[in-house]
Amino acid sequence: MDIAIVDTCLITMSGKGVGLINDGAIGITGDRITFIGKTKELNQREADIIIDGSYHATLPGLINSHIHTGETLLRGGAQDLPEIEWMNKGLGPFAKHLTSDDKILGSKLGVLEGIRSGTTTFSEYTRHATHLIKEVFLPFNVRVVATETINEVSSDRSLFKPTDIYVFNRDQGDSDFKRASQLFEEYKDVDLVSTLYGPQALDMISLDLLQEIKQQAEERNSKIHMHIAQGQRERIQIKGRYGADTTTVKVLENHKMLDNRVIAVHLHDSSPEERSLLVKRGASMVGCPSSISLIDGIVPPVSHYIEIGGVAAIGTDQAPGPGHHNMFREMRAASFSTKIIQKNPTALPAWQALKLATMNGASVLGLEQEIGSLEVGKKADVITIDLNNANLIPIVSKPFNNVIPNLIYSMNGNEVDNVIIDGKIVLKDNKFTNIEENSILKEANNRAKVIFEEGTEDWVKADSKMVSYRKNGFI
Amino acid sequence: MDIAIVDTCLITMSGKGVGLINDGAIGITGDRITFIGKTKELNQREADIIIDGSYHATLPGLINSHIHTGETLLRGGAQDLPEIEWMNKGLGPFAKHLTSDDKILGSKLGVLEGIRSGTTTFSEYTRHATHLIKEVFLPFNVRVVATETINEVSSDRSLFKPTDIYVFNRDQGDSDFKRASQLFEEYKDVDLVSTLYGPQALDMISLDLLQEIKQQAEERNSKIHMHIAQGQRERIQIKGRYGADTTTVKVLENHKMLDNRVIAVHLHDSSPEERSLLVKRGASMVGCPSSISLIDGIVPPVSHYIEIGGVAAIGTDQAPGPGHHNMFREMRAASFSTKIIQKNPTALPAWQALKLATMNGASVLGLEQEIGSLEVGKKADVITIDLNNANLIPIVSKPFNNVIPNLIYSMNGNEVDNVIIDGKIVLKDNKFTNIEENSILKEANNRAKVIFEEGTEDWVKADSKMVSYRKNGFI
Repeated sequence: MDIAIVDTCLITMSGKGVGLINDGAIGITGDRITFIGKTKELNQREADIIIDGSYHATLPGLINSHIHTGETLLRGGAQDLPEIEWMNKGLGPFAKHLTSDDKILGSKLGVLEGIRSGTTTFSEYTRHATHLIKEVFLPFNVRVVATETINEVSSDRSLFKPTDIYVFNRDQGDSDFKRASQLFEEYKDVDLVSTLYGPQALDMISLDLLQEIKQQAEERNSKIHMHIAQGQRERIQIKGRYGADTTTVKVLENHKMLDNRVIAVHLHDSSPEERSLLVKRGASMVGCPSSISLIDGIVPPVSHYIEIGGVAAIGTDQAPGPGHHNMFREMRAASFSTKIIQKNPTALPAWQALKLATMNGASVLGLEQEIGSLEVGKKADVITIDLNNANLIPIVSKPFNNVIPNLIYSMNGNEVDNVIIDGKIVLKDNKFTNIEENSILKEANNRAKVIFEEGTEDWVKADSKMVSYRKNGFI
Repeated sequence: MDIAIVDTCLITMSGKGVGLINDGAIGITGDRITFIGKTKELNQREADIIIDGSYHATLPGLINSHIHTGETLLRGGAQDLPEIEWMNKGLGPFAKHLTSDDKILGSKLGVLEGIRSGTTTFSEYTRHATHLIKEVFLPFNVRVVATETINEVSSDRSLFKPTDIYVFNRDQGDSDFKRASQLFEEYKDVDLVSTLYGPQALDMISLDLLQEIKQQAEERNSKIHMHIAQGQRERIQIKGRYGADTTTVKVLENHKMLDNRVIAVHLHDSSPEERSLLVKRGASMVGCPSSISLIDGIVPPVSHYIEIGGVAAIGTDQAPGPGHHNMFREMRAASFSTKIIQKNPTALPAWQALKLATMNGASVLGLEQEIGSLEVGKKADVITIDLNNANLIPIVSKPFNNVIPNLIYSMNGNEVDNVIIDGKIVLKDNKFTNIEENSILKEANNRAKVIFEEGTEDWVKADSKMVSYRKNGFI
């Protein structure tokens, strides 16, 4: 046995409840979990490294089921804006200056933040995923579910008015699709990497290409990770292209695109009936509560999806806007936003929030046999949390384990002090074992200054509401 | 000059905007701020202690405008419950075992958490405030606005059914009122302490006693800190006592209780017209977004109150339930919950959230001449924040200062590394200078275990929804 964590409050997330074992221990051999149980049942002499888990909770590493890490250099770049201004007038003037290297640097920053707050699996959605896998995820030794974006619309949206129907460029779509196929080939035998198909959204891809993607996904037994029903911009396109009385979900259903391979992201512009149909077809969903509430003032229907029998997970989307890649905060946001929107304080309770970021994430991403809970035979993705902090105390186990609500409602994220991924210790006593954190932070900060500077003229010209905030000395 | 913080991103919160000075410096002499400006304008040789503020933001200490620190030992004790169960079936079985010493210990824990996340002024609402002032606030050297609770209803609510009209006990009310008067006398010359009158809520106090309190508040030129329109339990009492068509605000107005001395806490059961009346009368308000959304699924009307010209601030209420006393998290909660409930991503923007916890808090508590912003002549309540963290980077100042949104939308709270209160350094480089943190944490944890154990039988018998959560292994 290589590593043992002993005398810990073990929250396995296995079974119907949270699978909590007080005075628990976990043993790791190679990249797998080889022991789960009470500390007294473990032969500690067998372990090379023993981590003292007292006053700590030990959990499965968290799963961020939808994230674009490459935009993290633009954190703080666009928020408190009308939805219609956020993308083009707010973020656009800076985003256009992001080079391929900047996306790698931003990804490093976002992944650092994610690891420090307990995330071990990142479901990355991006163009040129291979850049981030090679430069960030593999060198950092973190698990990645990589989705290569496939779309047929030029990323330069300034060519279109919001009401124009986008012109599809099939060559671009084919080229993206080819890159996605290559990604599957390139990483099919790499342990830390798995891959999904990423037709971006129905407003950005033709049904023809979508069908081809579906066929290949079936051949490769892969899932399809797609933004669905994400609001006004998409709705205008779908109605313009497919008819005034239709919707994204209806078009997908009519073309037999809905099945258990579909991972539907966002869904806030879907009806309850459409979500029931998705559940019936076996599709899963991912919601991004912080992102969608900051950008749109809307709560994604994560809780409803679960109530009607679906599987839902959560993610942090991009940093500019919601600001963060901290899954503890995201679990809390999911719970609070649901309680508010349903006017019901029992909605989305603490343990359900914890499931969203563990077993549910694993199920949505098709990795439920490998990660999401602490069980013998599963991959050793494990985090420990220092409970000896003023904001987490007290921890009691009788008459119930208040550690579960405290992790969701009281934790900041920085209390994560050990992170093990695939059996390797990545963060040890708050320090990275294999990553030069400070030099990345410095480089990211310096480079962001240049990008924001480069975008200044366009930003002022775009004249979003943020420009008036600036004039008033608010930012 | 005793202390200078130099080369910092100074966010003064002075003036209409956030009053940000890049490459700023602040000088402190005794308990007052004696210099604000650019670092190059400061003669550093004059300062005894120089704090390097590079890669840091420096802000006024945060103001928590409504808090009950004495319940912090019960953190994680009651949440995810129907509103009607939270107080009596959830918290009650444990709360009845809290001794006077337990409240002191809980208060220490809550104040530690508050300081660590940047709070320097605690607006404490409690019975026997003098215990906490003597044992916690003064020894810890933190600023306290103490409100002595005055009410005429026995705290043992098990005597009443929810629909019974409470029997008032004037002797209890008089005794509370006397204690409140003594508090004023005792601390009138103590620098760190100021005092308010605290008639708990209109359902718990007679109009006679309320009038007497008002008269004394006028004589002492003090404010009146009162829970107003806090929901169903109060509404039943007011209608039963004063008539089916009346409300708390109407009764208070009819008896000429509404004026600029009133600090109305919560207000989520008030109408927009009633809030307009309160604003017209000069009353201010405090909302507790995390607490009220967790306990009731409701967003307090903080943003509406500001829109109609009122002054509003925020606080964290009690730890059990919302879980925390972290004002950075509370600012974020205020912003996000407002965006959601108004379906408007521009609602309660970052800088407005920051005002809630600084200048607005000072104004509500009647301390706007002394604290809430960094200005020469004001009290030296100052915090610094280490921006060199993966979740806060990048920080850019052109074309705007993204530090403002990043502090609200990306900060955890633990990045606060220096806390100065009344000119004294309480937290230096993340370490308390005058508080034995670890022994308090240990004692709090041990004592809480006993209290939860003592409450077990009653808790099981009360049979709240949490008991079923326990049976299912969720907590």
